[in-house]
Amino acid sequence: MKVLIAGLGLIGGSLALALREHGIADEILGAESSEEHAREALRLGLADRIVTLEEGVPEADLIVLATPADALPLLAVKVLNRVTDRQIVTDVGSIKAELCEVLSMHARRGRFVAAHPMWGTEYSGPSAARREAFAGCNVVLCETERSDADALAAVEEIYRTLGAATLRMDPEEHDLHAAYVSHISHVSSFALALTVLEKEREDRHIFDLAGGGFRSTVRLAKSAASTWVPILLRNKYNVLDVLREHIHQLQIMRRMIERDDAEGLAQAIRRANSVRRILP
Amino acid sequence: MKVLIAGLGLIGGSLALALREHGIADEILGAESSEEHAREALRLGLADRIVTLEEGVPEADLIVLATPADALPLLAVKVLNRVTDRQIVTDVGSIKAELCEVLSMHARRGRFVAAHPMWGTEYSGPSAARREAFAGCNVVLCETERSDADALAAVEEIYRTLGAATLRMDPEEHDLHAAYVSHISHVSSFALALTVLEKEREDRHIFDLAGGGFRSTVRLAKSAASTWVPILLRNKYNVLDVLREHIHQLQIMRRMIERDDAEGLAQAIRRANSVRRILP
Repeated sequence: MKVLIAGLGLIGGSLALALREHGIADEILGAESSEEHAREALRLGLADRIVTLEEGVPEADLIVLATPADALPLLAVKVLNRVTDRQIVTDVGSIKAELCEVLSMHARRGRFVAAHPMWGTEYSGPSAARREAFAGCNVVLCETERSDADALAAVEEIYRTLGAATLRMDPEEHDLHAAYVSHISHVSSFALALTVLEKEREDRHIFDLAGGGFRSTVRLAKSAASTWVPILLRNKYNVLDVLREHIHQLQIMRRMIERDDAEGLAQAIRRANSVRRILP
Repeated sequence: MKVLIAGLGLIGGSLALALREHGIADEILGAESSEEHAREALRLGLADRIVTLEEGVPEADLIVLATPADALPLLAVKVLNRVTDRQIVTDVGSIKAELCEVLSMHARRGRFVAAHPMWGTEYSGPSAARREAFAGCNVVLCETERSDADALAAVEEIYRTLGAATLRMDPEEHDLHAAYVSHISHVSSFALALTVLEKEREDRHIFDLAGGGFRSTVRLAKSAASTWVPILLRNKYNVLDVLREHIHQLQIMRRMIERDDAEGLAQAIRRANSVRRILP
C-alpha cells in the first residue's frame, strides 16, 4: 500500500514508522509545510519522498491528514475533492465535530474515515515520532455510518494491526469528552508551569526540589503552542466549560485550606482518590 | 547500626528497605500506630520487630521519624527527651519551619538532623515502600548548624550511601519552595481529578479517552488524605499564596480562550514551555 501522510510531526511521523514496521506501507510519501521538518523526516526515514499534496494525492492508496487542528477541515475538503472511489482518506485530529460537519455533504464523504488515536507526548516534530505509539491505545472513530464499508474496514484493520483498539463515538460527544479528559490536563499543566515560573524566581530551587510529582504534573506544559492553541480555540466551548469547573474546584479547596477545614479537605481528597478506580 | 523507624509507610518503609539493602542497618525496629500497617510491615520485612517508642528509643543508634506531618513536631520533642548524646534522631517530613522552631531550644537539639528527601509516589502504606527510592534524589537538610557535627555527618553519609545528594536550606525557605514545587502539584492534581469526576459522569469515557497526558497530570490525585491534609494545613500560608497565583494563571488562560486570543495563548504556552530548560 502506498501511503501519503500530510504533516510529519509527532502523530503523522509515528504513524509512518508504525505503518512501515508492520509492513502495511510499501512506500510512504510525506507532505510537509515546514522545510526543516521535511528534511528531518527524510533523514529519520519517516517518508521515502517529500511531495506536494497535488503530486501525492493521485498516487496514494491511503491518505492520512496529520496537520494541526485548525488546518484540518479545509485540507480534508481539498483532498477529498481529488480522490477516486478506490482511495481512502483518514485523519488523526483531536477535534471532530467541525471536521465532520464540514465534510457531511461532500460527494466523496464515503472515502473519509474520521479518527482520533488517543495518544501523544509533550514532544513535537518529526524527531518526536515513536514507532510503538499506537500499541495499546484507543482510537475513536466518528460518524462511521458515513464512511464506505471498505474504507472503514481498511482503517479499522490498520489500527488493529498496529495494536490499537477502535471505538465509535458521536463527534460532539468526542469533543466534549476530549475536553474533559485531555484538553483540560494541558491547560492545567500550562498554568501550573506558569505559576511556578512566576513564583519561583530561582530555577535552581525548582530543579533541586522537583520530585517526581511536580515533573509528572508539569510534563504536558512542554507541549507545543502550534498544536495546542488551535485545539483549545477550536474546542472553545467545551474547554471553557470544564476550565470553569476546574477553577471552581480549586477555589473550593482554597477556601477549605483558609478555614483549616481538615475534614472537608480529607473528603475532597478521598473523592479525588476515586480516579484510582477508573485509572488503576 | 540498630535503627528505629517511627512510621512504616511509603517513606519510612522505603528507608527501611534501603538501609538494609546497603548494609547500613543490622536490625530495624519499627514503631507503627496502625496495627494493620505493623503486621504488613513485618510481613514485608520492613522491620525485624514492632516496638513502642518507649521500648525502641533506648535501643536504637539512629531514630527516623516518618509519621504524617501533623504528628512530627511533638513526636520529635518526645523522642529527643529520651535520647543520649550518642544517639541520632532525624526526620523525613515535608514541612520544616514549625519543626525546627519547636526544637530550637531543646537541650538535645544537637542530636537532631532535620531532613526532607524529595521523593514520593502517589501510593502510601508499607506496601508502597520501594528500596530504590532515594537513589538520585535530593535531600534537603535544615538548620544544620544546630546539629552536632557527628550526627550531621552520619546522616549525610547515610544518604550518600543510598545514592542521594544532600543540600542545605533555611527551614522557611524550604517550606516556601516545597509549596511552589511540590504541594501545589498535589492541589492541582486533586482539583483536576474532581473536575473530571464532576463533569464526566461516565467512567467508561474517562477510561477510553485517557491518553498518557491525563494519566500523568492526575497521578498525584491518588495520594492519601492522611498524608496531604496535614501538609496543606501546616504549610497553609505558602500553599495559599501559590494556589492564588495558580487560580490567577488559569483565569488568564480562560479569558484568552474566551476572547480567541491566539497570540496571547501562544505566548503563555511558550512561556510555560520554558520549564523544559529547568526540567529537561
